[in-house]
Amino acid sequence: MPIAETKDADDRLEQRMADAIRALAMDAVQKANSGHPGMPMGMADVATVLFNRFLRVDPSQPAWPDRDRFVLSAGHGSMLLYSIHHLVGFPDMTMDELKRFRQLGSRTAGHPEYGHALGIETTTGPLGQGIATAVGMAIAERMMAARFGKRLVDHFTYVIAGDGCLQEGISHEAIDLAGHLGLHRLIVLWDDNRISIDGPTSLSTSMNQVARFRAAGWDVRSVDGHDRAAVAAAIEAARKTSKPSLVACRTTIGKGAPNMQGSEKTHGAPLGDKEIEAARTALGWTSPPFEIPADVAAGWGRVAARGAVARRMWEERLASSSRRKAFEAVLSGKLPPSLPRRLAAFRKEHVGKATKVATRKSSEMVLGVINATTPLTVGGSADLTHSNLTVTPGLGSIGPGAFKGRYIHYGIREHGMGAAMNGIALHGGFIPYGGTFLVFSDYARGAIRLSALMEQRVIYVLTHDSIGLGEDGPTHQPVEHLAMLRATPNLRVFRPADIAETAECWELALAADGPSVLVLSRQALAMLRTSHSRSLPAARGAYVLREVAGGRRQVTLLATGSEVEIAVQAAELLASRYRLAAAVVSMPCWELFEDQPEEYRRAVLGTAPRIAVEAAARLGWDRWIGENGAFVGMTGFGASAPAPDLYAHFGIDTAHVVDHALRLAERAP
Amino acid sequence: MPIAETKDADDRLEQRMADAIRALAMDAVQKANSGHPGMPMGMADVATVLFNRFLRVDPSQPAWPDRDRFVLSAGHGSMLLYSIHHLVGFPDMTMDELKRFRQLGSRTAGHPEYGHALGIETTTGPLGQGIATAVGMAIAERMMAARFGKRLVDHFTYVIAGDGCLQEGISHEAIDLAGHLGLHRLIVLWDDNRISIDGPTSLSTSMNQVARFRAAGWDVRSVDGHDRAAVAAAIEAARKTSKPSLVACRTTIGKGAPNMQGSEKTHGAPLGDKEIEAARTALGWTSPPFEIPADVAAGWGRVAARGAVARRMWEERLASSSRRKAFEAVLSGKLPPSLPRRLAAFRKEHVGKATKVATRKSSEMVLGVINATTPLTVGGSADLTHSNLTVTPGLGSIGPGAFKGRYIHYGIREHGMGAAMNGIALHGGFIPYGGTFLVFSDYARGAIRLSALMEQRVIYVLTHDSIGLGEDGPTHQPVEHLAMLRATPNLRVFRPADIAETAECWELALAADGPSVLVLSRQALAMLRTSHSRSLPAARGAYVLREVAGGRRQVTLLATGSEVEIAVQAAELLASRYRLAAAVVSMPCWELFEDQPEEYRRAVLGTAPRIAVEAAARLGWDRWIGENGAFVGMTGFGASAPAPDLYAHFGIDTAHVVDHALRLAERAP
Repeated sequence: MPIAETKDADDRLEQRMADAIRALAMDAVQKANSGHPGMPMGMADVATVLFNRFLRVDPSQPAWPDRDRFVLSAGHGSMLLYSIHHLVGFPDMTMDELKRFRQLGSRTAGHPEYGHALGIETTTGPLGQGIATAVGMAIAERMMAARFGKRLVDHFTYVIAGDGCLQEGISHEAIDLAGHLGLHRLIVLWDDNRISIDGPTSLSTSMNQVARFRAAGWDVRSVDGHDRAAVAAAIEAARKTSKPSLVACRTTIGKGAPNMQGSEKTHGAPLGDKEIEAARTALGWTSPPFEIPADVAAGWGRVAARGAVARRMWEERLASSSRRKAFEAVLSGKLPPSLPRRLAAFRKEHVGKATKVATRKSSEMVLGVINATTPLTVGGSADLTHSNLTVTPGLGSIGPGAFKGRYIHYGIREHGMGAAMNGIALHGGFIPYGGTFLVFSDYARGAIRLSALMEQRVIYVLTHDSIGLGEDGPTHQPVEHLAMLRATPNLRVFRPADIAETAECWELALAADGPSVLVLSRQALAMLRTSHSRSLPAARGAYVLREVAGGRRQVTLLATGSEVEIAVQAAELLASRYRLAAAVVSMPCWELFEDQPEEYRRAVLGTAPRIAVEAAARLGWDRWIGENGAFVGMTGFGASAPAPDLYAHFGIDTAHVVDHALRLAERAP
Repeated sequence: MPIAETKDADDRLEQRMADAIRALAMDAVQKANSGHPGMPMGMADVATVLFNRFLRVDPSQPAWPDRDRFVLSAGHGSMLLYSIHHLVGFPDMTMDELKRFRQLGSRTAGHPEYGHALGIETTTGPLGQGIATAVGMAIAERMMAARFGKRLVDHFTYVIAGDGCLQEGISHEAIDLAGHLGLHRLIVLWDDNRISIDGPTSLSTSMNQVARFRAAGWDVRSVDGHDRAAVAAAIEAARKTSKPSLVACRTTIGKGAPNMQGSEKTHGAPLGDKEIEAARTALGWTSPPFEIPADVAAGWGRVAARGAVARRMWEERLASSSRRKAFEAVLSGKLPPSLPRRLAAFRKEHVGKATKVATRKSSEMVLGVINATTPLTVGGSADLTHSNLTVTPGLGSIGPGAFKGRYIHYGIREHGMGAAMNGIALHGGFIPYGGTFLVFSDYARGAIRLSALMEQRVIYVLTHDSIGLGEDGPTHQPVEHLAMLRATPNLRVFRPADIAETAECWELALAADGPSVLVLSRQALAMLRTSHSRSLPAARGAYVLREVAGGRRQVTLLATGSEVEIAVQAAELLASRYRLAAAVVSMPCWELFEDQPEEYRRAVLGTAPRIAVEAAARLGWDRWIGENGAFVGMTGFGASAPAPDLYAHFGIDTAHVVDHALRLAERAP
């Protein structure tokens, strides 16, 4: 054929490739009788251009390190992603899976779930998380490129985001950070369909998104999202700028459904058989449901073939690279074998000494060892570096054009930090940890939940963990946060009591398969561990810190973090003044304790009456203290005053523990 | 004096009035040895101009309804507010209180706490909450003005916000909504000091805030924040526009401290005696700590006097207004006495019928009664109106230039919605309720916590409350959220089981002194209440829904919401097939149950073994089931599938409850 005709044929084929997405999305949603056809149909053209002309994806090696990342931030449009994954030939995304959309045990969950199917780069659905996670991926890409060069690290991060993503607050945190850092390999394709669930977006927003992104330091291009040539030109240009890019794609939601397109009715419900039939006619799509014509299949197959070539060329570059071993080592995410040894030495050095430091300070000391031992850790803080004590000497700051460092000033953006850390962890090459006050885990909840759902190795360093922070008052004093975090599945919540436990908790967090939270004190705490242990007592979640003489307990005191010291003092007082035998159990991590054999748990908790001491809400403690136990902690919000005054005011002190102990042991105080 | 000299004298006095703030802030922080002098010193000039020339405040009647609202969004600068409140003569803000800054029991908490001192319009400290709460106040002001006209409602809402406020995601949600609604009586004074805690803001942001606010539909003016005439001119102009206004005030943090100003070192720590002495010299401030020269006191006194005049004139207008009674009625916040009667009639109509509806639908039906009976309620949703079922006929939408309605399309902005509802409640005149999915309470956590801390009557309508939402999958299925909300002090968490309970919970939420959460199902639930009760069984938090014949329980089933139906079915099966006597306790509100006398609680819980059924995390349930009880619920995240499949998959069903009951009653299944 002459070139012009070839071009026409290519163009017609690309249109049919897009229409295949539309057909699969309509049909799968209809079969499930549940889902969102509007977005996949509206963005089918944009997504097809992206995959057909730009994205480097190899379904035969879905986790190939230098692949382009694609994030469907508007996760409700999951059929867009599943359709494409089927069409390009991800081996697990069979047609049967599309037919089982949204059914129990299928790979085609309602929203894309990381780990449920190959090639899903991150879980999306809670709006705005995708774009903010992608910022983390793009940061990791820049950091890897700074370390290993363009020969080994040469990929883009593409995002499809909807109006909802851009209305959510987290999007502000994400785009401000991305613009500041100049993440020019981040390209966001905005599905500007002007429809949200309640109706036209004009019901609730008048934002000029183009101006908004420019204000944040982004390059912006506006195109008709159904003009594939224009979309391609915009992406081509976006790939060449020195800034992150927004391509505003003006689209029609449900494009292709002749009677419903452009309406919110296509957003979140099946179109119905009649409208689907009409759409087939309008699109000229003659295949029955869940059948793909050979030419369309071949077209999508070429996308995969192009990806495979790129992947093989990259593998050749890697094979011939002098940095190969280092590259593979960081990507493995494995910690150096010397780390446990060094941390043991650190613990040994401190155990039994009279040092009195806050656990946030202990954490800084431990991080000094960790960061000097492995290059994997990337620290940061939401503008509380010198309060969270998250930086150690020599890390070097990440900044515009400067990605060799290992410390990120995330700004006053807890939610954006959490999502960025998820993206960094998902990208691979690094173990991110980031700090803020425990109370501001509230602001990061959405991202923390996704860390847990995706089981990513993200470490939240949450300091100023109780009324012990003192004068800042109740807005800054967590009360309900330990319960909130402990109730979250897959999340390890560590609240260490002294330097030794802090080192152990850090070691456990680094070794974990999922996310961890380190809950640390502002105020100085005594060193409680009296002898060095080669094993990690904290690894069992709870352990007997002080056993009674002779082993016959009259009461058992349970505590975490800063309150373990109070429990120890109370036990000493009970022994010396009242001849009451009180054991003290430190419980730095409930989740690990729950995983222990019942026998161990029973031995630790004992049969004597139990009193829990924690400067937080009671919720959850009844499991450990039982019906006849007592709880010494918070019953409401905190107050503004120096910390010692607050502990006395709220009755979280030795005297109250002693009173309860005497009462439970049936002794008059 | 000639006019020019008077003007000069006025100008010199205004400067001294500002310096009085600086002196008090330095001295109080120094005395407390804790706090933030930098912001009050940097914004002293701006705040003085605002109060001296514009703000209508009358310390003798601090809650005067038509006062201007002032919100210190950068709440860490609390000494700015306390200093001004002392200087204008709020009766409770004595010099002794300033000397007791950040001490136990003082009115001068670390951050401004609503209710701790007169004239504090809202609690601030968690960054961004102030500006977002102020948007709610400005919405309420427009709504009241639309109802009662300018004669009775003619005030502004002023905000001082810092860089932190503008970096937080919530600020995006707030300014987008404010710009969309054209809240032209909202004026934000931005403390553009280019310093955050970690150092210069250039560490983490390159945002062009001026362009950003313009993109959101705001008027923006930029001034030197120490040029009082320029500040005054900008505020004057901002008061006249048809848009919300940002005044970007370029300031020097710690202004007046000659060696430290402009540095983050002035942000969060006392300046030290030596620097304070140097500042006194630089400012020409000769008074000792905590003493105010007579001329300065008189200058600030005139601010109060002007406010008192304005207040008295307003009172005269109110006295002569034909709308006086209506105005006072809505401001009282009192519900019409007919409401309980109508809700009782509603319950009576439905009790015992075979209607099967989701509690979100029940909620809509109840809201139909409520919204038709009182004009106080203002509904809304974060773009899930027809999922949350929060709108009722005839409410009318709030929109640009249209404030007579009672329904707010908050957009995809859960956090902004929560804060706006706080602002609406604080302003007075309305009872706000707003909907989203329970899982997205994560996104609104920061605002929910402030509803609780301030004990505001804000009602969160949280639907799709479990795996019962089905196909949307784990990102949309709450698991840990009930624990998170129950652990939050001052918050009532209602999870009703049927139409009758839903009506009761709504009635209790409306009558409460603080915030409530209504946790509602997506899926249809049976009507369980068999007979009408004039009292509200739900008011006791938990009650026996099905007692056993003869009163001798062999097991007690505890459940909430959608799982009460499962418990009832299990009890029936246990009775009919196994002759095992199982009582069913419905527990729609733990908090209210906790408040009951122990005798009542014991009677309800009984002495038989107990099994709890709730499609959520276990955390917290051990309190009610005891050490020998059982829990049927979630142990991890959910999945994507039709709801009935999920209940079966996760074993939250009659069969599992029956198995546990037989085991606990020591019967082989």
